[in-house]
Amino acid sequence: MGRKKISQPTKPIIGITMGDPAGVGPEIIVKALSRNNIFRFCQPVVIGDAKSIMQGLKVVRLQLNIHSIKNLSEAQFQYGSIDVLDLNNVQIETLEMGRAQSMAGKAAVEYIKKAVQLALFKEIHAIVTAPINKSAMNMAGFEYAGHTELLADLTKAKEFRMMLIARDLRVVHVTTHVSLEKACSLIKKDRILTTIELANEAMKQLGIEKPRIAVSGLNPHAGEGGLFGKEEIEEIQPAIVTAKKLGINVSGPYPGDTVFMRAKKHEFDVVVAMYHDQGHIPVKMLGFEIGVNVTVGMPIIRTSVDHGTAYRRAGLGLGTADPRSLLEAIKLAAKMAQTGLKC
Amino acid sequence: MGRKKISQPTKPIIGITMGDPAGVGPEIIVKALSRNNIFRFCQPVVIGDAKSIMQGLKVVRLQLNIHSIKNLSEAQFQYGSIDVLDLNNVQIETLEMGRAQSMAGKAAVEYIKKAVQLALFKEIHAIVTAPINKSAMNMAGFEYAGHTELLADLTKAKEFRMMLIARDLRVVHVTTHVSLEKACSLIKKDRILTTIELANEAMKQLGIEKPRIAVSGLNPHAGEGGLFGKEEIEEIQPAIVTAKKLGINVSGPYPGDTVFMRAKKHEFDVVVAMYHDQGHIPVKMLGFEIGVNVTVGMPIIRTSVDHGTAYRRAGLGLGTADPRSLLEAIKLAAKMAQTGLKC
Repeated sequence: MGRKKISQPTKPIIGITMGDPAGVGPEIIVKALSRNNIFRFCQPVVIGDAKSIMQGLKVVRLQLNIHSIKNLSEAQFQYGSIDVLDLNNVQIETLEMGRAQSMAGKAAVEYIKKAVQLALFKEIHAIVTAPINKSAMNMAGFEYAGHTELLADLTKAKEFRMMLIARDLRVVHVTTHVSLEKACSLIKKDRILTTIELANEAMKQLGIEKPRIAVSGLNPHAGEGGLFGKEEIEEIQPAIVTAKKLGINVSGPYPGDTVFMRAKKHEFDVVVAMYHDQGHIPVKMLGFEIGVNVTVGMPIIRTSVDHGTAYRRAGLGLGTADPRSLLEAIKLAAKMAQTGLKC
Repeated sequence: MGRKKISQPTKPIIGITMGDPAGVGPEIIVKALSRNNIFRFCQPVVIGDAKSIMQGLKVVRLQLNIHSIKNLSEAQFQYGSIDVLDLNNVQIETLEMGRAQSMAGKAAVEYIKKAVQLALFKEIHAIVTAPINKSAMNMAGFEYAGHTELLADLTKAKEFRMMLIARDLRVVHVTTHVSLEKACSLIKKDRILTTIELANEAMKQLGIEKPRIAVSGLNPHAGEGGLFGKEEIEEIQPAIVTAKKLGINVSGPYPGDTVFMRAKKHEFDVVVAMYHDQGHIPVKMLGFEIGVNVTVGMPIIRTSVDHGTAYRRAGLGLGTADPRSLLEAIKLAAKMAQTGLKC
């Protein structure tokens, strides 16, 4: 296929991976791409299976054309038509909606591989991923803990972190998918410093020139001066001191139970959270529907919906899946791509 | 003094401890008691220092009378006048507003001791506490970790837990003021079971007959089937099973990052959180101003504001302190007292 490197795009090309065909991916994608305004700020292309997208259209009863293409250069990026880079890898007759199955897991991985290839060759400016199912992926022989680990492997990223965004609340995590006990043992100066640096870079990609970064404590009351744990004194504070010396506008450690509210009230641009639930709870309190997941520290821009395949909902086939998280993920990817730092 | 046991009160008598005289306590108390509606559902009496309350009135420029009493039987409980059980223990001329000092710490402890005595003798039906300062209390020679520990000592309570409430979100904590690492090691079946039982009792006190209790997991995704930690399988689930056998309507463990949102949407009446920040973050995301702290498992009813002495604000003397948390705490104490389970 032709590798046409796009140098000065007016609107970034966003590759949307279809995710697990048995999940809500196809449905939320067609809903999102039925919105005219999406085409105002980006050029979206689905990396998936045309028949699955067609089925998604039927479920939601939308009148849109599907433009099945084999090569990105054929994409038209016109409202009213959905460009699908068709990997033609779903046996739609045997696909069981709403169930983890090997064929669907394999297909989902293939979309991601293709998208990463296109992003690394700069044929697309960002990837937005619809949900995959870990069990289905594992059934297909891909033993990854999740989406992010697969992407990290494909892009050879060494240091990457999960950022969650809901409205103006942005959180980057020092640790994520490990036990809380293990997370405590991973709270070390170097890891925190790297997270602060990655948070700083991510904010710049979002167009914030001198980001105000808040670092949360690990322990209650940020340790209360060492009374409830020493990590703030021995690891977190030294990381903040070093980051400041590097010219980063960072402060803390702040008590975890108030720092997110302060960020929500615009006192900070981003919060560095120490562990999964500490960062996820405040974001999800703002609403499941609007959250976006961004992987920072990769050589490509990648955003994702903040929900799973919703197999139960997909299996019902009622067309009731909510596309808001995907819409937010597309908007964010376009914004990050526009800053041009990575493209 | 006369120990008049109140058997069938129409409105519960609520003892409001004044807290640290150098903090915002006096100010928020007079603001709260300037609201007519408070007197509709309870009979409030301040346990404090009349001169400090007088100074609070001046700061907020309210026209109310102060009715200084030495004995509870003298209380009038009439709107327009503030009954103050006057311990006369603040040298108002030397008191430095907005600063931790021994005299203020000692005074604050004396209000609490008096209130506990009255509550244990059922002369008052509930205690509502205005904020104290730990440093000031320690300066005065009282080496308690906080308000709750002092109250537990005075009431000889063995098993007690912190409940936080903001609007319809209620959270009871298995652990609170210990390092996160230590909290992980305290996540044991017996401790969780006791917390579930105390949460159940507290909900009944709030008038909920068959409370729906959700138990949060400790680890990300509630352990993801043991992949991210074993506490859910080895400790939390067994506690839930036993609680169910005791007839409690309890379920879980649910992932910490979604269970609070579900409770907020009224799927559960109360959530059992495993550690301080897990429970505090979602409550504080609903707003600092409306949170109420309740100690469950004590032989007396005790609610508290969910904020500190705000020394800085108190020191400015501008009368800008927010009484909403105190108002909520008074309303809640009255509601719990009304169920009559403890009085």
